[in-house]
Order: sequence, then C-alpha cells, then structure tokens
Amino acid sequence: MRILFLNGPNLNLLGTREPGIYGRQTLSDIEARVRAEASVVGATVEFRQTNHEGELVTWIQQAMSGWDVVVLNAAAYTHSSIALRDAIAGSGVPVIEVHLSNVHSRETFRHHSMIAGVCRGVIAGFGPESYILALRAAVTLTDGQK
Amino acid sequence: MRILFLNGPNLNLLGTREPGIYGRQTLSDIEARVRAEASVVGATVEFRQTNHEGELVTWIQQAMSGWDVVVLNAAAYTHSSIALRDAIAGSGVPVIEVHLSNVHSRETFRHHSMIAGVCRGVIAGFGPESYILALRAAVTLTDGQK
Amino acid sequence: MRILFLNGPNLNLLGTREPGIYGRQTLSDIEARVRAEASVVGATVEFRQTNHEGELVTWIQQAMSGWDVVVLNAAAYTHSSIALRDAIAGSGVPVIEVHLSNVHSRETFRHHSMIAGVCRGVIAGFGPESYILALRAAVTLTDGQK
Amino acid sequence: MRILFLNGPNLNLLGTREPGIYGRQTLSDIEARVRAEASVVGATVEFRQTNHEGELVTWIQQAMSGWDVVVLNAAAYTHSSIALRDAIAGSGVPVIEVHLSNVHSRETFRHHSMIAGVCRGVIAGFGPESYILALRAAVTLTDGQK
Amino acid sequence: MRILFLNGPNLNLLGTREPGIYGRQTLSDIEARVRAEASVVGATVEFRQTNHEGELVTWIQQAMSGWDVVVLNAAAYTHSSIALRDAIAGSGVPVIEVHLSNVHSRETFRHHSMIAGVCRGVIAGFGPESYILALRAAVTLTDGQK
Amino acid sequence: MRILFLNGPNLNLLGTREPGIYGRQTLSDIEARVRAEASVVGATVEFRQTNHEGELVTWIQQAMSGWDVVVLNAAAYTHSSIALRDAIAGSGVPVIEVHLSNVHSRETFRHHSMIAGVCRGVIAGFGPESYILALRAAVTLTDGQK
Amino acid sequence: MRILFLNGPNLNLLGTREPGIYGRQTLSDIEARVRAEASVVGATVEFRQTNHEGELVTWIQQAMSGWDVVVLNAAAYTHSSIALRDAIAGSGVPVIEVHLSNVHSRETFRHHSMIAGVCRGVIAGFGPESYILALRAAVTLTDGQK
Amino acid sequence: MRILFLNGPNLNLLGTREPGIYGRQTLSDIEARVRAEASVVGATVEFRQTNHEGELVTWIQQAMSGWDVVVLNAAAYTHSSIALRDAIAGSGVPVIEVHLSNVHSRETFRHHSMIAGVCRGVIAGFGPESYILALRAAVTLTDGQK
Amino acid sequence: MRILFLNGPNLNLLGTREPGIYGRQTLSDIEARVRAEASVVGATVEFRQTNHEGELVTWIQQAMSGWDVVVLNAAAYTHSSIALRDAIAGSGVPVIEVHLSNVHSRETFRHHSMIAGVCRGVIAGFGPESYILALRAAVTLTDGQK
Amino acid sequence: MRILFLNGPNLNLLGTREPGIYGRQTLSDIEARVRAEASVVGATVEFRQTNHEGELVTWIQQAMSGWDVVVLNAAAYTHSSIALRDAIAGSGVPVIEVHLSNVHSRETFRHHSMIAGVCRGVIAGFGPESYILALRAAVTLTDGQK
Amino acid sequence: MRILFLNGPNLNLLGTREPGIYGRQTLSDIEARVRAEASVVGATVEFRQTNHEGELVTWIQQAMSGWDVVVLNAAAYTHSSIALRDAIAGSGVPVIEVHLSNVHSRETFRHHSMIAGVCRGVIAGFGPESYILALRAAVTLTDGQK
Amino acid sequence: MRILFLNGPNLNLLGTREPGIYGRQTLSDIEARVRAEASVVGATVEFRQTNHEGELVTWIQQAMSGWDVVVLNAAAYTHSSIALRDAIAGSGVPVIEVHLSNVHSRETFRHHSMIAGVCRGVIAGFGPESYILALRAAVTLTDGQK
Repeated sequence: MRILFLNGPNLNLLGTREPGIYGRQTLSDIEARVRAEASVVGATVEFRQTNHEGELVTWIQQAMSGWDVVVLNAAAYTHSSIALRDAIAGSGVPVIEVHLSNVHSRETFRHHSMIAGVCRGVIAGFGPESYILALRAAVTLTDGQK
Repeated sequence: MRILFLNGPNLNLLGTREPGIYGRQTLSDIEARVRAEASVVGATVEFRQTNHEGELVTWIQQAMSGWDVVVLNAAAYTHSSIALRDAIAGSGVPVIEVHLSNVHSRETFRHHSMIAGVCRGVIAGFGPESYILALRAAVTLTDGQK
Repeated sequence: MRILFLNGPNLNLLGTREPGIYGRQTLSDIEARVRAEASVVGATVEFRQTNHEGELVTWIQQAMSGWDVVVLNAAAYTHSSIALRDAIAGSGVPVIEVHLSNVHSRETFRHHSMIAGVCRGVIAGFGPESYILALRAAVTLTDGQK
Repeated sequence: MRILFLNGPNLNLLGTREPGIYGRQTLSDIEARVRAEASVVGATVEFRQTNHEGELVTWIQQAMSGWDVVVLNAAAYTHSSIALRDAIAGSGVPVIEVHLSNVHSRETFRHHSMIAGVCRGVIAGFGPESYILALRAAVTLTDGQK
Repeated sequence: MRILFLNGPNLNLLGTREPGIYGRQTLSDIEARVRAEASVVGATVEFRQTNHEGELVTWIQQAMSGWDVVVLNAAAYTHSSIALRDAIAGSGVPVIEVHLSNVHSRETFRHHSMIAGVCRGVIAGFGPESYILALRAAVTLTDGQK
Repeated sequence: MRILFLNGPNLNLLGTREPGIYGRQTLSDIEARVRAEASVVGATVEFRQTNHEGELVTWIQQAMSGWDVVVLNAAAYTHSSIALRDAIAGSGVPVIEVHLSNVHSRETFRHHSMIAGVCRGVIAGFGPESYILALRAAVTLTDGQK
Repeated sequence: MRILFLNGPNLNLLGTREPGIYGRQTLSDIEARVRAEASVVGATVEFRQTNHEGELVTWIQQAMSGWDVVVLNAAAYTHSSIALRDAIAGSGVPVIEVHLSNVHSRETFRHHSMIAGVCRGVIAGFGPESYILALRAAVTLTDGQK
Repeated sequence: MRILFLNGPNLNLLGTREPGIYGRQTLSDIEARVRAEASVVGATVEFRQTNHEGELVTWIQQAMSGWDVVVLNAAAYTHSSIALRDAIAGSGVPVIEVHLSNVHSRETFRHHSMIAGVCRGVIAGFGPESYILALRAAVTLTDGQK
Repeated sequence: MRILFLNGPNLNLLGTREPGIYGRQTLSDIEARVRAEASVVGATVEFRQTNHEGELVTWIQQAMSGWDVVVLNAAAYTHSSIALRDAIAGSGVPVIEVHLSNVHSRETFRHHSMIAGVCRGVIAGFGPESYILALRAAVTLTDGQK
Repeated sequence: MRILFLNGPNLNLLGTREPGIYGRQTLSDIEARVRAEASVVGATVEFRQTNHEGELVTWIQQAMSGWDVVVLNAAAYTHSSIALRDAIAGSGVPVIEVHLSNVHSRETFRHHSMIAGVCRGVIAGFGPESYILALRAAVTLTDGQK
Repeated sequence: MRILFLNGPNLNLLGTREPGIYGRQTLSDIEARVRAEASVVGATVEFRQTNHEGELVTWIQQAMSGWDVVVLNAAAYTHSSIALRDAIAGSGVPVIEVHLSNVHSRETFRHHSMIAGVCRGVIAGFGPESYILALRAAVTLTDGQK
Repeated sequence: MRILFLNGPNLNLLGTREPGIYGRQTLSDIEARVRAEASVVGATVEFRQTNHEGELVTWIQQAMSGWDVVVLNAAAYTHSSIALRDAIAGSGVPVIEVHLSNVHSRETFRHHSMIAGVCRGVIAGFGPESYILALRAAVTLTDGQK
C-alpha cells in the first residue's frame, strides 16, 4: 500500500507564519505524524512540496506508476487550476483533497474548488489531523472497503 | 465522550434508492458500523434522522447540554439553511459536516455549503466511511489534540 | 390506480384570500371536482395539505408504498426546496408538478422551479382545471400509454 | 370551437430523430390523435409547422380572426423570442404553451420561457399527451369553465 | 387591540449565546418588557417562538382570526422564505418585520429580506428596543393614525 | 438631549406630489409632529432638508459638535452614496436611518442601502410615524438603555 | 432625398391592440402623417413592414442602393438581433432607431438595444410623433447639417 | 409655451474639448440655435447648466411652477442619479431626455439610463440637432397633439 | 463525397463592405476557390446564402438527404440561435462551424457560440482560407480518418 | 510648475476620526509636508477640499487654466462618479489619483475606481506619503521625463 | 518555413488516458503525422510539451527568433492564462490555437479562451487532424496568401 | 536597507515589443535607473525576472531572510494568483505592487488585482518612474516614517 502526499504552494512556510490560521506545526512535523501512523497500518508514504503548478501536475501523472492513492493539498491552486483537474482525471489515480484550515470560513475565493469534482473525497478544517484522516481514508479506499 | 450524529432529509431512504450515488448500506447499517467503532474508542453515540429543517435546528440547540461534538449530515438543507447556520453558531457545540457522496461532482447547486463556514471541518465523498472518519475526527477534537 | 395529491404551504387559504390570483374555489372544492372526475376514470385519490416542507418530503417518500402517481403543488417550496427534489428523485414515484396560477407572469423568483427537472411534467396556469388535467395525465402515465 | 395548433422549428423532424428525447411519433401521428380527440369534443383543429420565427408571429396574429385558442409549441423560439411574446400579447387570443419534453431537465438555456408570462398556461413533459391535455385545457378555456 | 409577536428559529437561544450580537436579554426578558409596555397602552399581546418555517406560516394564517397586527422576527427565514411571504400576503393581516441586530452590517446573505416587500414596515438594529418600537408602530397602525 | 433630523433630495416635495406613495403630510407637518413629541420627552430637535449629497455629508460631520443622535432620511442617496457612509462612519455620531415608504416593496434599486451597515438601526414604511418612532429610538439610544 | 421607413414584427397590429401602450393610430395612419410631412420638405419616403428578422436584414442591405437614410423601428428584434446590427454596420447606410413607446419604462428585457450602438441616433417614446421627429432628423443628416 | 433646457456636468466644456465626440459647437451656440427655432414656433426657452446633481434636482422641482416641458441633458448623472429620477417623477413636469452623442456606442456604463423610465421620451445621437428635435417634441407635447 | 456550404445573414455583403474585418473577396470568390479545391479532392459542393434563420434550419434538415457534411457559417445567428442548434442535433449530419474573422477578438457578444457544442469542430479567423480548411476537414471526416 | 491638490468628501475629518485607517495627521499636516517638499523642487501647490461632487468637477475644469498637474484624492466619489471621469477626460489636464489607505484591502465597493482609467497613474496605500509620491510623480510628468 | 508546435499540460498523457475524449494516438503519433505532412510542403517543424505555464510563456517568446508561426495547444492554460496572452501579443509571432476535442461540448469553464483574442485563428474538435489543419493554415499564413 | 525588485512574466520583453503600452526602456534600463537612485539613498537593490508563478512565490518567501521590502511587478499573475497572495501574506515582508502601465485603462480583466489587498500600497501608470517612486516609498516604509 503506497500513498503519495503532495503539497502545493506556501505549505513549506507552515509553522513559521500565520499560526492563527495554519497552526504551529511545520510540514515536517506533519510528515512525522503521518509516517508514525502509516507504519502502524503498514503503508508506505512519501511527502513532496512545490510552489509550481506544473510540478504538481507532473507528480500526479507520475503517481500512475506505483502509487495507490494521492493525498493532495493543492493550497492556492485548489481554487483555479484546470491543469490539476485534468491531471487527476487523466491519471486515473484516486486523489483525496485535504486542507488544514476550513476554507469555507475564509475569503470567498477559497470557497470553490476546481479539483474537488474529480477527487474521491474532501477533508478540510482539522489542522494536521486532516492528513491523518486522509491517510485512513486512503487505506480504506485501497482496501476496497468503501 | 458523547457524540451526536444528526441526519437530514431523505437519509432514511439510504440503501433502497439511488445506490449508484449513495451506496447500498442503510442508515441503520451505517449506525451499526459507527457504534462498533465508537465502542472501540469508548465514545457514546446517538443517531437521529428527520426531514424537518426546524427539528435539525432544535437538535443542534439541544446538543449544548451533554454532547461534546455533533456530526451533521444536513443533506439538502446543507446548501440553503441559514437557520442551521445560526443554530451551529449560536449553540457553540463543535460541528463536523459530513456527506456520503462527493457533492462537488454533482449538480452546481450542491457545490456551496451554507453551514461549512461555521463548522469545524468537512468530510465528504467517502460513502459510509465518511461517518467513521468523522467519528475519529470528533474524538480528536474532544481530546483537544488538534 | 391510486393517485396522491399533495399540496404545500398556504394552499389551505385558497378561495378566501387573493381570489384575483388563485380564484374563488377552496381546496375542498377542488378536491370535490377531482374526486368526481376520478370516479369516472376509476382512480382512487387522496388529498393532503401541509405548511411544512419536511412533511411534504415524508409524504413523497411514503408514496413509494401503494401510490402510482403523485400530483404535487409544492407552492412556495417549488422554487427553493432541494429536499423535495431529492425526495422525488429518491422515491422513484412519478410526480406531476401543478400550479393554479401562471407562475411565469408573477414575480421573478417564481419563474424557476427547483423540482421540475425531476418531475415527469408540469401543468400550470389553468386554475383548478390544472388539477383535472394532472389527473388525466396521471391516468395516462399509469396506463403506460405515454 | 376552433383551436389552432402551431408548431415551431424542427418539430417536422419528430419521430425520425432523437426519439430518446422526443419519442417515436411524427407530428402527423400527433395531429391524428388530436383530431380524433377533437371530434369527440366537437372542436375544429388545424395543425401548422414552420421553421421561421416571423411566420409563427404572423400565424398568431391571424388567429385573431376565427380561432378561439392557440396551442403553441414554439420549440427553440420559446426561450428567446420577444416577437412571439409581443404577438401573443398583441393579438389577445388565449395561448397555451406546450412542450413534448420536460424542458426543465434539459440544458439550462431551455429553463426560461420568454413567452410563458403572456400565455394562459403551460403544459410540458408528457410527450404527445401534452397536446391532448392542451386540447382539453383549450376546450375548458373556451367553455369559460375555468 | 390584539398584537401577536412571532419569533423564528434560534431566538429561544437569546441571552445565552452570542451576546455580542444579540445582547444579554432572553426572549422572556423581552416579552416582559413588551407586556409592561402593552399594559400601558391597553394592548393584548402574545409571544410565540418556533424553529419551524411551516409553523410560522400556520401562525400567520391563524392571525387572520382575532389579531390586529403581527410583529414578526422571522430570523433566518427572513432571507429566503417565500412561504412566509405568501402567508403574509395571503392572510391580509398587517405585519411588522423586526430584527434585534442591524442585519445590514452582518453577512451579505442577511441584507436581503424576502418578506419585507409584503410587510407594512421594518424596524431593525435597536436590540430589544426594536420590539417596543414595533409595539408602538402596531398601536398606531391599529389606530389608523398613520 | 439633542437630535438632528436630516432630510435628503425631494423630501421638500412631500405632501404635494405622489401622495399615494408618500402621504399627504408636508415635511413641515412632520416636523410639527416631531416637535410636539420631542417637547414631551424633553428633547431638542432641528430639521434640515437639502437636495445636495455634499451638504448632507457636511451636516453629518457637523453633528459631531453638539448633537447626540442624527435621524437621517437620505432618500435617493440612501442607495448609492459612499460619501454619506464615510461621513457616518467618520463622524462617530449614532445615526438612525428612516424612510417614509416601505422601500422593499418598490423598485429593486431601492432595496439596497449603502448606509444601513454603518447606522445603528433602520425604521421604514410607517409614513410620518417613522419619524416619531425614530425619535423614540433616539431617546432610548441617548439614555443608554439599549 | 429618399428615406426608407422599415417596421418590424407586430407593428401591423398598431391601432387595433394594446392602445394603452401604442396609441390608436394604425401604421397606415402614421405613414399618412409622415408622407404629408415629407411632401413639405421634399423627401421621398417608403413604408414597409415585416414579421421576419431576415427580411429586415435584406431590406437594410437593399437600402445601400438608392436610399439616403433608413428609419428603423425594429420592435422586438431591437433587443436581440445581431444580424440586424451586422446589416446596419455592413450596409453603411445611416440608420435612425425609433420606438413609439418609451421602452425604458417597460420590461427590463426592452431596456437594452442590440442595434443602437451602430445607429446614428435614437428617438423613443413620442408615439407616432417619433416618426415625424425621425423624418426631420433624417433630413438634417442628409443635408449634412449635423 | 415655456420650455426649460437643463444641462448637467461638463456640458459647459462643449466645443472646446473632445470635439470628436461632442462636436465643435459651444453650449451658447446650441442655445442660440434653439432660441432661433423657438422664436419661430412661439416658445419661450431658458438654458441652464450646472455641475451639481443637487442643483439639477432643484431646477426640475422649480419647473413645476411656470414651465410646460423640461428638456434635460443630465450628462454623467443620467446613468446613476436616483435623485433626478425621483425629482422627475415627483414634480410631474413632462421631461424629455436628450444626449448629443449616441451613448449606446460608447462605454458600457453609459448604456443604462436611470431616468429614462420616468421621462416622456429620449432623443440621442444627433449632436446639437438633438436639442432642436427635443424642442419640436416639446411643442408637440404641449399642443397635446401626441 | 458531397459537402454543403451554408452561409448566414449578411454574408452576401462580403467583399463590398467592411473589408478591414472580412477581406475583399466576395462570397462568389470564396465559392470559386472552394470549388477548385473540391475538384482536386473529388468532392461535390454547393453554396447557399440566406438572411433567414428559419431557412438555415430548413437547409440543415434537408442535408439529411444526400449530403455527407455541412460547413456552416451561421454569422450573427451563431451566437443566439437555439433553433439552429436543435436542427444540427436533430438532423444528425456532421456540421463544421466556420468563421472568416477571429470572433474572439471582436465584441464580447460574439465570443459565445450557441451551436459549437453540437458541431464536430470549429475553424475561425483565417479569412476565406477558413473555408478551404473546412473542406479538408470535411473530407477527412467523410473518409473516417479522424 | 504648478500642481493642484484636490481632496474629496470627508477628507476634512482626517486626523480626528478613524486613525486606524487614515492615520493621525490632519489634511493641514499633509499640506504642510507637501508644501515643504514642493519648495525643495520649486513647485507651486494649492490644496482644496470639498464634500460636493459638483465642486470637484468644477475645480478639475478650472485646472485647464494655469495648472500643470492635478493630484486628486476623490475619496468616496472615486468609485462611482462618471461626472469626475468626464471632467478629467474633458479638461485634458493630467490627473494623478491618490489614496491614503490601501483601498484594495477594504470593502469590495472600494476596489473599483471609475476614474482611474482616465488618470495618468494611481498611488495608494502609503498614508500621507502617497501625497509626497504623487508630488514627485507630478514633477516628473511635468518635466516630460516619463 | 519554420513552424513551432507547443503543447501544454497533460498532453503527454495522450493516447493512454481518456481515449473517449482525446483518442488513442499519442503525442508522438501526432508529431509523426505532422512531420510527414510537413515534409510534403517543405516546412520545418518542432514539437515541445510542458506542464509549466511559465515554460510555455518562455517558448512563445523564443519563437520571435527563427520561427514563422506557432501552433499552440495550451490545454488547461487556454482558459485562464493572461501570461500566455501577453506573451503572444508581446512576441508578435503569429499563433494558431488548436484543440483536439471540441471544447464547446465539454464543461462550461472550457468554453472561454483567454488567448483566442490575440491568436490569428482557432481550430478545434478534429482530433489529431486539428494539428494537420493548423499546419496547412500556418503554411498559408506564411505564404501571405490569406 | 535592502530592497528586492521582482518582475513577472513577459517583463523580459520590455523595450522591444509594444512600446506604445510599455515604453522603449528595457528592464535593464530600468534597473540601471533604480540602482542609480538607490545609491543616492544608500539602499541595496536586486532585480530578478521570471515567467514562472511558482518562482515568484519562492522568491517572495526567500525575501523573509535579509530583505526589508519587496517591490513586485507581478504582471499577468497580478490578476489571478492566489499563490502569490498567500506568499505575500505568509512571508510577512512588506510588498509594494507596481505597474508600468495604467492597468485601469486597459482590458477589464486587468482591473482587478488578486494581490493588492495584502500589499502595503500600489503604484501604477508612470512607466519606469513607477519603479523609482516605489523605491522611494520602500525607503520611507523602512524608515518607519509612514
């Protein structure tokens, strides 16, 4: 069971800036928590982060080879990227959309997701716990127990 | 730890109609799965269903007395009910919004949630597993581990 | 052949108020005309009225057991109720939408129907005659002669 | 009692194309059914079809002389023709709008009718039966029994 | 002189929650103030509260028998309920719309009232004093002194 | 206790034109009624009227010196004047928005108020009585009894 | 000096229907008045009417040969016809848009003109006098006195 | 016969700036032409210009005393002034809206007139000739020959 | 291989008017070029032009008998004609939409095509060469080589 | 080198109200800073303030005589005044738009400027420093060094 | 004659995914077909693909040196990229927009092209044949035969 | 004092293309002018340019270490990039938005800035002088003299 965690623009700033919105944990802290949880359920995970829309597209395409599920926090690109949407639909890999914050209680332009319609599901608003929940959801998807 | 699961209009039809969208499990099947999981983590749960917007409002108000978290599948009322929004904001009880289906891949009028902005988080698209994930998220919220 | 006539909010005021828009016949008068016509074609009919959206939802669900067609005048809820739409789609019972007045020559917010897209057909603007026409259409639907 | 049935663009294709939407009966088949029904109730009917918006306008104007009711399936022109609206309002002849398909379950641009506001009523979604229902409604209108 | 005060969803929470918006007085406190004022001017008043849209509709219809004016705080239903609008227009009883808070300085979806157009007048933003002002306005309306 | 009544464009025409909308009382008649009422409650009032947006702005600024409350009927400028909004917010004087007619039952462009969001409250639709109610509300505001 | 008066759909009904909006004069009456006025100023005029958008397009094209100005009352086609707009722009003949009624005090869909932007000027709201004013404007245009 | 010509903001710049849009004649030149024409038909005319919206409002109100028709070029205020609209409706004096340029071939924000709906008619696009045509229209209105 | 070229309103003006937009070739010139090219590839072609929307509808219907592909320049009707859309969908003949100019660099109302969604493809902006490209595309479609 | 600084509605309140948004300096303080800076670069400056839209229009027109550049803080009128836009375009004097606050981080209705399109440039968000920067920009414009 | 074919995000997935929409040919297959055709007409071609918006921008800029025409399938970036639009307008190289699928029969957000307005022409919906047609159009453009 | 100048897509084309909009100076010319000015005020500056949105995001993040102010000309990404907005808000570095051209007198899609709301201020329309003004503003910000 192999699960790829992809993180979009500015998530490398986690923990150092705007803790009121995003909390005090860094992306490495979150990765550590996910890895601990993954070892319990016997899953292999990998964490990547990029500020480039095009690189996220490429990574989703690459997930076609060897990954069972993608957990995607596309951050700002969530709301506008048709290229990400096409990559998800085109790669055929099941993708779970996650967000740390509750995007619906923030600015209006964050209420719409361009990619949610081609993802399997969405988990938002639980802080780092969103990633843990997504891991569990991914395991369930892979087990075909849905 | 006490968690109240509230279900809105037409969820009593689950399992008998439109399985292509909602799956073949009934609301009782889901309740059974949630209860099994809840007993593992030591949580008390209760399941209610109603077709009345006003009754959902009343139940959310009542959750102020004795419940730690509400897991709410408001179904059709998700998209238009300001009364539910006011009840959630007014009661102060943490509420987790869940959906069985991925609302974002359905009709446009299901893409907007009137209540998400005052909920703690949103979990959508994982079928009955959405409820299990919400249970886990609720436990985490209650543990203050977020 | 069993046909259920469901009437939404304020239709209990028929005949006593705003006769310029809705005519002078009460809902009972209309029911009497429909019953007379139904006896001719050998149909069983039942009339119900409620001001509660949730009760309309429940009645449509109940129509799954023992009713062939629902004739629905959802009145004000026509224009906004996703719950009614879901009930109609979920119950699978054929529903005919009726209106006494020509909603298209009234305020703009009455021009759009949230439920028409999941109904079999729409009949509007003929006053009480709308119900008689709906009865006939229901008989035809039931006869599979469409 | 004289009733004029006017049919707009592409209705001459009925029965040969897109039977999934419009059914397998031709416009002649429908006319035959209407004529049979009309003879029962003692009504004179005439059927016309044109692809020209301007010709529909002219026919509606002509209905002022000698016709009691117009049954109008304006097809594509339903949704945009102010000229038809003006003709209906200007001629003063009562007009009943009919549609074979349930326009509300098709593309969004078919949900709005430019002419419904000046028609007496609307009947949509019952296939050829829509025309029979319109005939009956027309007879009722003429009898002043509404 | 008989004046009926109807209160919509979540107003039973008054005084215990969100005092920053709604103040610290409960609905009972407000009722007491109104009753004191009413006794001065010789008016009979009654207070009701419900979370159900349909019940508000029914109460407004009942006001046709024996009540001179309705003072209505429809709360969340103010902004979307066509059924309330129809009940007000259909019952013919003069209705005064009140709000505790200044709805125009809150979220955009609270800026529009679906019912104001069929009410006699609107009073908003004065906290519990809004009810006292509405009582006075009701007395004036009843006195025909407007 | 000093209360300044400011009246916007065309209110000098009151009583002579469009009595169907605005009633038959002149602005002087209203002033007389307000003065009578003010003398009872021991308030000093002043009435001003202007057709100039800029003059209303100036008067609101001047109210900072020596006036406790402004009662403002901005008439046509209600719906578009950002300058008035800025003056109200900038001066810090509590302002009560009043209207003679029920603006919500008139043209759509009168349904939105640019200034309501920075006023304390709104009273609309009671004819000249709106001013009396505003006077009472102003007294309450000044007494800090809100 | 040759001026072509083109009249669109339903203008052949003038004088017989809806006199409240269009007055009691027929199109022939108006033509007679225009001819009388034209003979005074030495202009040749011709009147045509059609219900067909395509015919109006063709007539405007033909005006390139031998006509100095077109006075166009496009009626219902005014508000939607890109084909008329293209014909006016393509033919290069100066066109004056006229309307009998004040279109701006009627339904919203009559407030926008698709053709006004490529016409020389617009005259609306003066009843048959609109045609006389257009004649005078046409003479001035032809004289190059503008 | 007395006709008042009111001119709004920036029309005092006529002839000196942007001749490509407004021509080379000054407002005095236009006044001279109108006076010459007025003397022929025996009309008394007066020309005023102001940059203040409030002053235009006042002038329209004053026209109630002693003027038969107002010819109004409200310039920039045409598109947004509700105060002007109210003044026209309130004063009851017939008003003719004029424009030098064809506002419909300029920026989109000039395509809508806030005042046209309460004016008798509109004349636009003929340069200074627009004023002459308006004079003639005014004479006709006054003669009751419409 | 038989290909029908249909041309909509104002295309008969080609070459004589607005050469800056449409070039200097007439429709006959274009037809000659297409015929020359068609003879090379062994295709039979026919050119028709009309200003009538209804005639285009009829011609598309007729293409069902004996034509393999329709190349359609619907000109102004491209942007609004639901009737054309229905004719294309109903006839089942493959249609290629062509435009001489690049409609996307012109007015906004030319950016949307009502018919493109039911055509096989779109070619726009290459002047007369658009027709040659469409001929080649039609041949390819017919050869089933797509 | 002569530069005219024009200030719109409510800017006379600067320094005394809402210092959180506008800072603690009065308009006189700003004028003093600008004058000091102007004397260094050898520019003559004048400061004016008005609450009247019409007066700003007049002042911009007057700038045609003797002023090289206008620095304009139109405040609330920035967002809606077509009259100001016409005055700027009509006078031909180069205008620099300034704002103390960053209008883009305030309410939505402050994000659009009706006048920016006809100004030379915009400087916003630097508090009183905005005026100093505008002075420097004005000097550069005048020196033709742009 | 040198023609540069630029391909945007996800086009590297061609042939392996979603063949129902994009067909079974890979981008290499298409390149081979284009090269074969190019050798016939004596053109030099180059194919590039990237998932990065910025890289497409750079390539279009580079086309200024040594390329006669760019054929651009910007895929998902077609609908939102102002940067691509600016690059096309700024580089001055003629660009032909191509699409494999008929974007107008897909989701609404694919109906608008941000770049079409600055391209020479558009070819969409013919599958790989779209590229061959674009090659031919490019040759014609280069030959100046348009 | 260290100031980082970041330049977005297509700004590397400056001076060679579209000089009518952007002037004849290259980005290097501008850099030279800024460096000269910076040396006068004792500031260290660095210039970077990229066509990649992701790289701009990264550079803004990097500015957290060692830079006092960022001057950002995001060019096309100004209008749509939420990622840039998040980077600016997340990095906490003060950012000044600059534009060479007056974006408000260009296409509508350039009138809205997605990033202005989180920048300190905006300077637009002064050509290369915009950069000099931004430098001065940056120095002032750094001096805390605002």
